[in-house]
Amino acid sequence: MHRKRPHATGRETPSSPSAPQADPHDLGFGQVVARESRKRLLNRDGSFNIVRKGLGVLQSQSAYHTLLTISWPRFLALVTGFYVAVNLVFGVVYWALGPHTLSGPGLVVVGGQFWRAFFFSVQTFATIGYGQVSPVGFTANAIVATEALVGLLSLALVTGLLFARFSRPTAAILFSRNAVIAPYADRTAFEFRIVNRRTNQLIELHARVLMSRIKVEDGRARRDFTELTLERTSVVFFPLSWTIVHPIDDESPLHGLTAHDLATCDVEFLVLLTAVDETFAQQVHARTSYKADEIVWNARFADAFLRSADGQELIGLDVGKLHDIEPVQPVS
Amino acid sequence: MHRKRPHATGRETPSSPSAPQADPHDLGFGQVVARESRKRLLNRDGSFNIVRKGLGVLQSQSAYHTLLTISWPRFLALVTGFYVAVNLVFGVVYWALGPHTLSGPGLVVVGGQFWRAFFFSVQTFATIGYGQVSPVGFTANAIVATEALVGLLSLALVTGLLFARFSRPTAAILFSRNAVIAPYADRTAFEFRIVNRRTNQLIELHARVLMSRIKVEDGRARRDFTELTLERTSVVFFPLSWTIVHPIDDESPLHGLTAHDLATCDVEFLVLLTAVDETFAQQVHARTSYKADEIVWNARFADAFLRSADGQELIGLDVGKLHDIEPVQPVS
Amino acid sequence: MHRKRPHATGRETPSSPSAPQADPHDLGFGQVVARESRKRLLNRDGSFNIVRKGLGVLQSQSAYHTLLTISWPRFLALVTGFYVAVNLVFGVVYWALGPHTLSGPGLVVVGGQFWRAFFFSVQTFATIGYGQVSPVGFTANAIVATEALVGLLSLALVTGLLFARFSRPTAAILFSRNAVIAPYADRTAFEFRIVNRRTNQLIELHARVLMSRIKVEDGRARRDFTELTLERTSVVFFPLSWTIVHPIDDESPLHGLTAHDLATCDVEFLVLLTAVDETFAQQVHARTSYKADEIVWNARFADAFLRSADGQELIGLDVGKLHDIEPVQPVS
Amino acid sequence: MHRKRPHATGRETPSSPSAPQADPHDLGFGQVVARESRKRLLNRDGSFNIVRKGLGVLQSQSAYHTLLTISWPRFLALVTGFYVAVNLVFGVVYWALGPHTLSGPGLVVVGGQFWRAFFFSVQTFATIGYGQVSPVGFTANAIVATEALVGLLSLALVTGLLFARFSRPTAAILFSRNAVIAPYADRTAFEFRIVNRRTNQLIELHARVLMSRIKVEDGRARRDFTELTLERTSVVFFPLSWTIVHPIDDESPLHGLTAHDLATCDVEFLVLLTAVDETFAQQVHARTSYKADEIVWNARFADAFLRSADGQELIGLDVGKLHDIEPVQPVS
Repeated sequence: MHRKRPHATGRETPSSPSAPQADPHDLGFGQVVARESRKRLLNRDGSFNIVRKGLGVLQSQSAYHTLLTISWPRFLALVTGFYVAVNLVFGVVYWALGPHTLSGPGLVVVGGQFWRAFFFSVQTFATIGYGQVSPVGFTANAIVATEALVGLLSLALVTGLLFARFSRPTAAILFSRNAVIAPYADRTAFEFRIVNRRTNQLIELHARVLMSRIKVEDGRARRDFTELTLERTSVVFFPLSWTIVHPIDDESPLHGLTAHDLATCDVEFLVLLTAVDETFAQQVHARTSYKADEIVWNARFADAFLRSADGQELIGLDVGKLHDIEPVQPVS
Repeated sequence: MHRKRPHATGRETPSSPSAPQADPHDLGFGQVVARESRKRLLNRDGSFNIVRKGLGVLQSQSAYHTLLTISWPRFLALVTGFYVAVNLVFGVVYWALGPHTLSGPGLVVVGGQFWRAFFFSVQTFATIGYGQVSPVGFTANAIVATEALVGLLSLALVTGLLFARFSRPTAAILFSRNAVIAPYADRTAFEFRIVNRRTNQLIELHARVLMSRIKVEDGRARRDFTELTLERTSVVFFPLSWTIVHPIDDESPLHGLTAHDLATCDVEFLVLLTAVDETFAQQVHARTSYKADEIVWNARFADAFLRSADGQELIGLDVGKLHDIEPVQPVS
Repeated sequence: MHRKRPHATGRETPSSPSAPQADPHDLGFGQVVARESRKRLLNRDGSFNIVRKGLGVLQSQSAYHTLLTISWPRFLALVTGFYVAVNLVFGVVYWALGPHTLSGPGLVVVGGQFWRAFFFSVQTFATIGYGQVSPVGFTANAIVATEALVGLLSLALVTGLLFARFSRPTAAILFSRNAVIAPYADRTAFEFRIVNRRTNQLIELHARVLMSRIKVEDGRARRDFTELTLERTSVVFFPLSWTIVHPIDDESPLHGLTAHDLATCDVEFLVLLTAVDETFAQQVHARTSYKADEIVWNARFADAFLRSADGQELIGLDVGKLHDIEPVQPVS
Repeated sequence: MHRKRPHATGRETPSSPSAPQADPHDLGFGQVVARESRKRLLNRDGSFNIVRKGLGVLQSQSAYHTLLTISWPRFLALVTGFYVAVNLVFGVVYWALGPHTLSGPGLVVVGGQFWRAFFFSVQTFATIGYGQVSPVGFTANAIVATEALVGLLSLALVTGLLFARFSRPTAAILFSRNAVIAPYADRTAFEFRIVNRRTNQLIELHARVLMSRIKVEDGRARRDFTELTLERTSVVFFPLSWTIVHPIDDESPLHGLTAHDLATCDVEFLVLLTAVDETFAQQVHARTSYKADEIVWNARFADAFLRSADGQELIGLDVGKLHDIEPVQPVS
């Protein structure tokens, strides 16, 4: 797994992300990534396509991070699972202590003593305490005291997690599934489209697009990063959609390239967006990337505006049409 | 709804908010808005006058956004409605399971069995658990376990929502109902007035005012944006009111225009404010707009200061007089 | 209270805080304050010495602001008072419904029926529900359902308030009670001292000091603002104390002034500090002001450092000595 | 403890952290620290090596700060201890009021009456309220009302603390245990390595390194600060590790120094990092320092990358190898 790299000089310390003179488009992926990685750098959801190991779960706080970022159905399933598990554990304890631990009637079902203990645990954990079943003796009462503390802490924890999930500023930007190479004035342009997934406002958006491709120099393949010039790099408001446009002029690194070239060079377009979320007045970041097979040539984005019945008046946006593209005649 | 637009060229992709060379006053409304929209752009409360569709409620998180932004009476009504609804559902379930599901006396009213079930649900959901009514058998206990979890999660949810509503940095800036065209030195000025609605401090206020109007060029009407020069664009503190003043000098786009002209050109003054809320140390944004019919000509804002009994000493501000204007002689 | 001001021109609209050409030291207090106010502008705690009226309590959110900013003893007293009040109200309701509303034994004290109802309310509001007293009939149960909702919402509210009080970034900067005019090299300097009241870290502190004084021009008194040049305006770290120093050189507006002059001109030194609170990574603001009678002439701040037993090694700071000053010989 | 310092002039007021002309590398430690302190300035965890006294616990909010910053096991131990303590106090009160304070069966163990009171307290504090034991009379009920309030407030408090602990933006940057003096191109460099301890993303990292050393001038030892030139001072992304490199060229203050020199001059390398935590969109700060004995000469950081089975493809990072260094031949 860990190979000695005999030719490494000080200037190329394996773990040094930079080296010669800081390249402004390097982004911190580092020389070793540039030299050795052929994988996609950014996943479509903006996360880094990188494996990390060597840290315990607690130390990396990945449990907390997971609880914040999983989907709502999975979060609720986890909370429910935890609730059942805790009550199973305490139910087993009360049941194992014997039939005289709890006063009150058992349930008239198979395993009635156990279910009595389990539901007594529920009534204790959730601090209901009907009292038709109640603890008898020191041990049972001590376990009740423990379970009550666990119950209160769990409530506090879930409350905190729920709020953290809500208040977390996630950049709710939807990127079009594909980027297009579309006609643009008398030439073509690389374009993709974004909308705000949420009803809250995003303002002061800034966009950067970097093109990563493999270049062969002196017989060694190397990943190279170039920033693309955008028609506009920022907008103040974002009520509708924004089509981000890189005109492919003579200066563009895309000039003269074909779809085949993009696939051969292992091109990846890295998209970096920042915006301010008005709901919590926080700066948010969104990232994605487009690979060669996610680019549609000779297409443009379809009109996604809503218009009044007579078609004369613009009244809004149909977010569902974000991904819609339509073929166009190539520029000859 | 979605019409093909035959003459669109690449340079005018329907969804492209920009195009020729990025206009710094375009604000991100886009070409299509400039060309087709005749509606007010900003509502008085600062929201965008835009319809959005095509996203489910969950995906757009509009439920969460709604719960954060509706008024307190409506929020409390929703919470109460949810509380009643959940207990009705569980009450019906306990009741449908038959009279032996719950032990304890029924209520001596019409529908006594149902109300016993409903109030048992309340005692369970709220984790009171008097125990005068208690669940019998496996099914009843399993439903109790479910309802207890729903109750705890609901409490966690409402706690999180309450805190999110409180901690959300809303720009509590009150704008004067009208803008005025008032005498100013030897000419006139476009003015409006703002105060801080809350007792917390706003500092470092910055203001921008853009004038949007319809211009006809080459027989095509087009919305045009111009930024207005302000007497001052920022203040460090905001303990009193701030009258934002655009002097109508020879350079002003308002120079020579009459009230009739403003209405004809469909003029809209877009007001953008930023400030720092000291209570939570967050930057907040406020927006509004004034249309032609919200501008009063030959008027000025009335004095809104509180003075000591002898009238000599300034002691504060009467926020209630924010909107007060008084007529003045027009500058001849 | 509201006097017509006959000579006001457009340029001096009463509520306009600015006017001629934006004075960078005006701070937003405005012309009318400059012309009419003789009061202290900033209180010692940094709040503005301004009265506001004309808004309801709910609209100004002053209730919420108050709950966030009052001291902990007062906050706990308010919460306790609310708890008692709610239970008194519900206790009276249960009691007024008659002795058959609640089952279970009354208390054997004067007003036993009332106290039974009161303590039943406590057991309901706090969701304890022992069940030795329980509600009978539809009305009693409906009130229980209402009280349970009030109880849950109150818990959610207090939880939110407690967290908001904790997480609020208050600039915990202690200012020395007095400023001093101290010897400094071969001249004197205006100095005051600050420390961080808390154990959390403040970093990247920036200071501004403005001197406000009354100037008489053309027979009209007017408040004038001048920014003082500081020896240093910022520090990266703030582990100890920071003495902020304005050297009184020939350029200083304090040059040649005596203690009597300061009092006559109604001088007020406005101090504005910003810093970053590391605990919550938020920018915080602190303000205070010094009036003429809070300035001690010919004094300097006493050493407040803690040293090792042999006196050779600096080991820390005695925050309790922040205000200590000691007389020095005036510079002749 | 507090010694008069006879030679202090106004220009060297003991508590003034600055003086001549603001030194940009002074960082706010101040002249007195520069002159008198020989201790480490920054601890390895980034806190200041400074003692503070003279403030009460409440005033300094150190209790709150402690509850936010202690480890999770200690936090849970404190919460559990508080829970037991409160129930012991209320248990003793119920018990001291005599056997008729509570109805219901005592526990059949040594001290049965006391334990009955203790567990009744648990059932009240946690708002369970089985009701098999219940309060009798006004006094017992009044104490129950008090305990219920304490219980609800405690739950609110713990919920707030849990969330504050979670949402606090702590810079989870792990610094390599040692810095190295490694070969770098045709010379050497001072290097250390960092990784992100958490799975959340840190972006926009900026690094500063200052070298503090004791210089003797005019027979007086004085601490001197010099900023080191870094190969790169910032990276946009931080998915892997970052080795921060100061090349020791002719301009470097380390040029020509030996390990012995570093120890003699009491050198301390102060490292200041800022980054943006994407999870909460907040700027975070991390600090550490390296002293002479934490620097390894003629070593470099070992490769910490994970590679695919064939060793050709870079797939990630082994955080556990952060501290690994390997000896290298010194540059002759």
